[in-house]
Amino acid sequence: MKCLASTTANGLALGLLLLAELVPGALAVPKTPWARERAGGRGRKIYNRDLIRRAANSTGECDIVGAKDVNAPKDNIWGGLTTEEAVSVTAWLFSQPDLNLTASENATSWDNTLQLVELNHPNKTDALAYIDGSAAPPARYAHAIISHGSSDEAYFQDILVGPLPVVNGTTKWEPLEYPYTRKTEGKVRNLGADDDFLYDEWHAWVGSLVADITLDLWNGTALGLANDTLTIWGIDPLYQDGDGRIKRWDTFFSIADSIFDTGSITPMGLFFMSDVTGRNVSDWTLDGWYYNGVFYESTDDFRSAFWGGEVEKLGGNFDGPWAWTDQRGPVPRFDERAPPVEVTPQGARYAVDQERKYVEWMGWSFYIGFTRDTGMALYDIRLKGQRILYELGLQEALAHYAGSDPTQSHTAYLDTFYGFGPYAFELVKGYDCPAYATYLNTSFYVAETTHTHLNSICVFESLADYPMMRHSAADYVAVSKNVLLTVRSVSTVGNYDYMFSYTFHMDGTLGVEVRASGYIQAAFYAKNEDYGFHIHDFLSGSMHDHVLNFKADFDILGTNNTVQTMDVVPVTTAYPWSNGKVFNTMQVQRKFLENENHGRFNWGYNGQQQVLVVNQEERNRYGELRGYRVLPGNGGTAHLTVLDSTVIKNSARWAEFDVSVSKRKDTEPRSAHPYNNQDTPNPPINFAEFFDGESLNQTDLVLWLNLGMHHVPNTADLPNTVFTTAHSGLYFTPVNYFNQGINIETVNMVRIDYTAIAATEVLLFGSDNQTCALDYEPHSPDLWEYHGDVIVRKLPYEPDDAYRGTIVVG
Amino acid sequence: MKCLASTTANGLALGLLLLAELVPGALAVPKTPWARERAGGRGRKIYNRDLIRRAANSTGECDIVGAKDVNAPKDNIWGGLTTEEAVSVTAWLFSQPDLNLTASENATSWDNTLQLVELNHPNKTDALAYIDGSAAPPARYAHAIISHGSSDEAYFQDILVGPLPVVNGTTKWEPLEYPYTRKTEGKVRNLGADDDFLYDEWHAWVGSLVADITLDLWNGTALGLANDTLTIWGIDPLYQDGDGRIKRWDTFFSIADSIFDTGSITPMGLFFMSDVTGRNVSDWTLDGWYYNGVFYESTDDFRSAFWGGEVEKLGGNFDGPWAWTDQRGPVPRFDERAPPVEVTPQGARYAVDQERKYVEWMGWSFYIGFTRDTGMALYDIRLKGQRILYELGLQEALAHYAGSDPTQSHTAYLDTFYGFGPYAFELVKGYDCPAYATYLNTSFYVAETTHTHLNSICVFESLADYPMMRHSAADYVAVSKNVLLTVRSVSTVGNYDYMFSYTFHMDGTLGVEVRASGYIQAAFYAKNEDYGFHIHDFLSGSMHDHVLNFKADFDILGTNNTVQTMDVVPVTTAYPWSNGKVFNTMQVQRKFLENENHGRFNWGYNGQQQVLVVNQEERNRYGELRGYRVLPGNGGTAHLTVLDSTVIKNSARWAEFDVSVSKRKDTEPRSAHPYNNQDTPNPPINFAEFFDGESLNQTDLVLWLNLGMHHVPNTADLPNTVFTTAHSGLYFTPVNYFNQGINIETVNMVRIDYTAIAATEVLLFGSDNQTCALDYEPHSPDLWEYHGDVIVRKLPYEPDDAYRGTIVVG
Repeated sequence: MKCLASTTANGLALGLLLLAELVPGALAVPKTPWARERAGGRGRKIYNRDLIRRAANSTGECDIVGAKDVNAPKDNIWGGLTTEEAVSVTAWLFSQPDLNLTASENATSWDNTLQLVELNHPNKTDALAYIDGSAAPPARYAHAIISHGSSDEAYFQDILVGPLPVVNGTTKWEPLEYPYTRKTEGKVRNLGADDDFLYDEWHAWVGSLVADITLDLWNGTALGLANDTLTIWGIDPLYQDGDGRIKRWDTFFSIADSIFDTGSITPMGLFFMSDVTGRNVSDWTLDGWYYNGVFYESTDDFRSAFWGGEVEKLGGNFDGPWAWTDQRGPVPRFDERAPPVEVTPQGARYAVDQERKYVEWMGWSFYIGFTRDTGMALYDIRLKGQRILYELGLQEALAHYAGSDPTQSHTAYLDTFYGFGPYAFELVKGYDCPAYATYLNTSFYVAETTHTHLNSICVFESLADYPMMRHSAADYVAVSKNVLLTVRSVSTVGNYDYMFSYTFHMDGTLGVEVRASGYIQAAFYAKNEDYGFHIHDFLSGSMHDHVLNFKADFDILGTNNTVQTMDVVPVTTAYPWSNGKVFNTMQVQRKFLENENHGRFNWGYNGQQQVLVVNQEERNRYGELRGYRVLPGNGGTAHLTVLDSTVIKNSARWAEFDVSVSKRKDTEPRSAHPYNNQDTPNPPINFAEFFDGESLNQTDLVLWLNLGMHHVPNTADLPNTVFTTAHSGLYFTPVNYFNQGINIETVNMVRIDYTAIAATEVLLFGSDNQTCALDYEPHSPDLWEYHGDVIVRKLPYEPDDAYRGTIVVG
Repeated sequence: MKCLASTTANGLALGLLLLAELVPGALAVPKTPWARERAGGRGRKIYNRDLIRRAANSTGECDIVGAKDVNAPKDNIWGGLTTEEAVSVTAWLFSQPDLNLTASENATSWDNTLQLVELNHPNKTDALAYIDGSAAPPARYAHAIISHGSSDEAYFQDILVGPLPVVNGTTKWEPLEYPYTRKTEGKVRNLGADDDFLYDEWHAWVGSLVADITLDLWNGTALGLANDTLTIWGIDPLYQDGDGRIKRWDTFFSIADSIFDTGSITPMGLFFMSDVTGRNVSDWTLDGWYYNGVFYESTDDFRSAFWGGEVEKLGGNFDGPWAWTDQRGPVPRFDERAPPVEVTPQGARYAVDQERKYVEWMGWSFYIGFTRDTGMALYDIRLKGQRILYELGLQEALAHYAGSDPTQSHTAYLDTFYGFGPYAFELVKGYDCPAYATYLNTSFYVAETTHTHLNSICVFESLADYPMMRHSAADYVAVSKNVLLTVRSVSTVGNYDYMFSYTFHMDGTLGVEVRASGYIQAAFYAKNEDYGFHIHDFLSGSMHDHVLNFKADFDILGTNNTVQTMDVVPVTTAYPWSNGKVFNTMQVQRKFLENENHGRFNWGYNGQQQVLVVNQEERNRYGELRGYRVLPGNGGTAHLTVLDSTVIKNSARWAEFDVSVSKRKDTEPRSAHPYNNQDTPNPPINFAEFFDGESLNQTDLVLWLNLGMHHVPNTADLPNTVFTTAHSGLYFTPVNYFNQGINIETVNMVRIDYTAIAATEVLLFGSDNQTCALDYEPHSPDLWEYHGDVIVRKLPYEPDDAYRGTIVVG
């Protein structure tokens, strides 16, 4: 019985729990008046009896089916090149004498090679006429990257090839420059042109110079030989201090002898600096050593100090069970029993166009795009047919380390250099996503082939472990279920596994979440107490900031939008009715973001500022501006702690603020370029240059939003960081966008009416009520079908062999 | 195939995806070194083959069983009085002539009544000897509250009764004063002693003064009659400005004629002020009116202005479908099909002592306590047998409104006045918690009876929709499932439904989450653009701050703990190896919280400050202090925007900062008293007085932590606010507490080894692998069993009728 109040004056036993008695000392003081009025029993008409539906008893097999089929209303113009397009572009480029390309398997570091062939995404300006109107799809172009190794100044060049299809005589290539702030015909220097020499010979030579020392310290050597037990690795990005020199620090690591990927947590604490300026590798020099807090200017200095007994010898970090991720330790009680698992008694309730990577769910629809640099992104995200976002996707991920040693101090990974696309591996069914999810494949270009990762994007519905809406009242309780749709991919870029999830909710909310797991990159523990915790024998959990930039190109009821901030602020004020008395209270203060000079800012103090994307020309029924709020969600967000980083310089200016708002332009489609780390002072895309005072008033806007976390690893990060706390999220949620909450449309709610005695009605609103039988199937059979990559060879093209489970190297 | 790298120098087709080709321009540059070493195929021994377990095919019935039984190691000393204790204390108090008690059903406002009988929680000082040692349980006392109505200065008094069991001649009562900062023998004035008169006569009289106006405006009256269509309600807390006067503003509302609890969203915009000082109600005065921005000093002024045509007449807010929570609008496609649902193929994997409300799950254990004021709380929370927290629970919830009208301006609910216990209603199975959850009952004292809400706490395991840990590497992928345990209750205090969830994770993390749903309290829309949005015809979404205070009494390896802050800070520094070059980089800076003068603070800028609870005498294997980190989690947190609120004065000083740390004392067990709203300038517990400079260095500490949200309701809050974005959370997570992550102990993980061709091993580590058949059962049959309250009568006691499904008013 749930009555909140009644009148007690007459002392009647009303058959209701008397609120007067619930509240000590507050006789008949329900907090709100309405329940009081209800106590008399008036107004209790039963509402809409027709909706009542009692429990059915029709047990049968559950109807488990996959995603419904649907034809996307338009082609997916962000989906990538067809195999035929990629093959023909590749062949055409190899036939251009001016490019002088060499096939990858034959290429040396002094040849030109083709690094990338993928779809150049259409300009939004061109795309809208197609997706919103009846125009033909925008002309298709390929984006290619040439590595020019055949000169003393090695460089990459972005080029555009098209229009497609390739027609000899019509097809052209031209430098791709317009999407970059630096106007150098798409060219950027290649600091790694001689990495073959570096890794095969230089490191081995340096290793040989101190082989006696490494044997003495750790009984191991790094000589580039098969029986090495040590290896050498270095910083990213390289020193680029504007003096014309390119330098690097490298470190010794021990090599794992298990299967486990423990390399990033076995540093040995010995560092050396090399000047690797220029392509004449015989000019390279070894410029110093660092061990246990002491710098040695030459190998001789280090050797004589070491063998002179002046060096305190520390231990090393070696692979071992402490670093392995297999089950270990006492098994928690009952853990061998199968844990809870979600099932879909009536199958998928969404529709997918597998070919066009298009999804429809509960009024939402969107296309999935995919690129080498940034992996999965969503396009033309609509709710009830109206676009909310034109584009939503990762731009770049920074992992900025700090430490007392030269490796951690210089490390600031800009991960699109490695690419989120190639590292979006197959997902593990039942672990990364539910077994019942819909899995999609992704493809990317590598060395004249198309590689396909099967099942590398998953789409699934799930039931949140809390309801969407509920209320208990005097005579009834009403609760609705909270079902959401998730689109997910995981990219493992080296040691870290980034899980990207976009979640769609029935109230119109859209979530963006990143979680991080995998191995940390740790530092050797020596003189670095100010940079992290001591987490294993000679290991320091190297502090670092993760900052991940997302592009959110909102289109709220058209492309002309404005950002409005609404602050909840303390005020002191009097009122017409207060007889001069002043109140310490609060108000809201609203403001439109005028131009790009004010376009970069942080989330407000104490969460008191709302950031809204509105259309000033679109008001709801009550006169309020229709819009979406952008707010930090699960796990919060972070921008970069380091101010004006010496390491990344101008290559990641997007990391400096939580929120950046710029006018959307075809010439500013991305906040970062994958080769920004090759020229950090003067990168191909310097995000700061987007902000040049342009008006943000009712124009097409992009919000560049950072997720992230400040990570100071501790022993709980071993063997791997856990997703539980290593996460960051944002929500986009409707504010005055509709005239009421659209969550009210779901039938998956219940209202139970009751009297003091028992439930009198159970209203299910047409939600399904069939019992059925289903099989619980554990994970193992599927898991034996975990796939390798699938590769389509482009040169020569073998169409009959287009999809197969084995690997062919082009 | 998941290989990250290989050596390419010799051009061999290795049957591996070559990383060199994945990275444009970065020939053979995997981000980290270890994968490179693996490419040669060395070191690939298969680890622990014995763990391999292939898919089983033994289909049978799933073994679905409820929570395992367990005997709690100790009695639950926070669980409440037994029925016998409550009955005997009640009888004993009624037999004390000096108290002069009158049974509730016979009492007038000039009688003394018994408002509360419940267990007085033992002092921690006394409890530890029992729960940690072999001492007897601490002596049991009842906490009672007497409402003294029989005098000109009505007051409440907290008293202590005991020791229990009641033995005539031995049992005593004494004023309960020691847990309160105000030393007035547990007495506090009762501002609502004459609420019967107020609601039955005063409001009706005022309504009659303007009946002609309310008829003209809305065709309704508020005359205290059965056919009223209007009602009157007012502010909480009352005016208490220190001038000796007690005043209140009241407002007209329309009465719903549906079943729906829409009263809080149908204000009519007409306000009046009454001086209700003193118990001589004939001295009460009506001091003014307010309508549409204009204050009238007398009823005559208002009437003459109104009938003189000087008042702009606005409309009203009336109940209607717009305010109802039943399904409405177009049903989303496929929504009639059953959505996903979680099942437990092998039943519950936790153990519960139902009698003692004790739970064990995966190394965690805890007791559940329950009180009238604050509902559910957890005690003696242990992980692997070691206590992490002695007590974790809600203290108070503030909902502070603001507005241009006198009702919103004066409203700042302190919800323990109403109590979270009595409003923790039965949960709806399959909606509020999974149908398979374990449900517990809660009981509370009302008017000489014990009321029981069946199924008002749920305990359940669930599988998160993301894994706990994962890593993809060259030769394998490893992922572990993320199973968590949730303990939940929902308290509907008037219009709002607060969902409290404590979550336990296998990595040692504990989560605290609050979500809010239900009806907003809205304002009449007139002259209040600065206080919210226009959300319906004449309705403003009245801005308000929710702040909820939790007590977290940490015991990290004993009671002597210290709070350490660790800031990630930008620094500019040179290094031994940097040849004088300075770096813009970052470091950590650690600091111990010395004393209570520094005990109150906010979460740091950009999430750069970690707040750790450590034991300075307990270091892990690597010398780091063992501790737990406290951090904002899902949905963030908030403290009160209003500075030195005129309305709540000293009654909620706990709301001023995100975090407050005080020395734990038996005399400071709670941050708030339920009657703080009865004397806001001088409340029974003024939290600010806890902070008097005592040392916080290695002593027993309490962290008082605020959850909350700044809520500016918009149209999406109609009909009800949704839990999706209206939530706030905290995490407690181990930092250097163990020597490694304990999540590694679960068997619910998989490692799949593979070559370029296919999976070679699927390791399941003993996790269950049986297929089985289960029935999917929808919600309806259960829902017809939704219960009323259960009441045990104490005076006279009818033990044979102790639990029954109907209501008896004592």
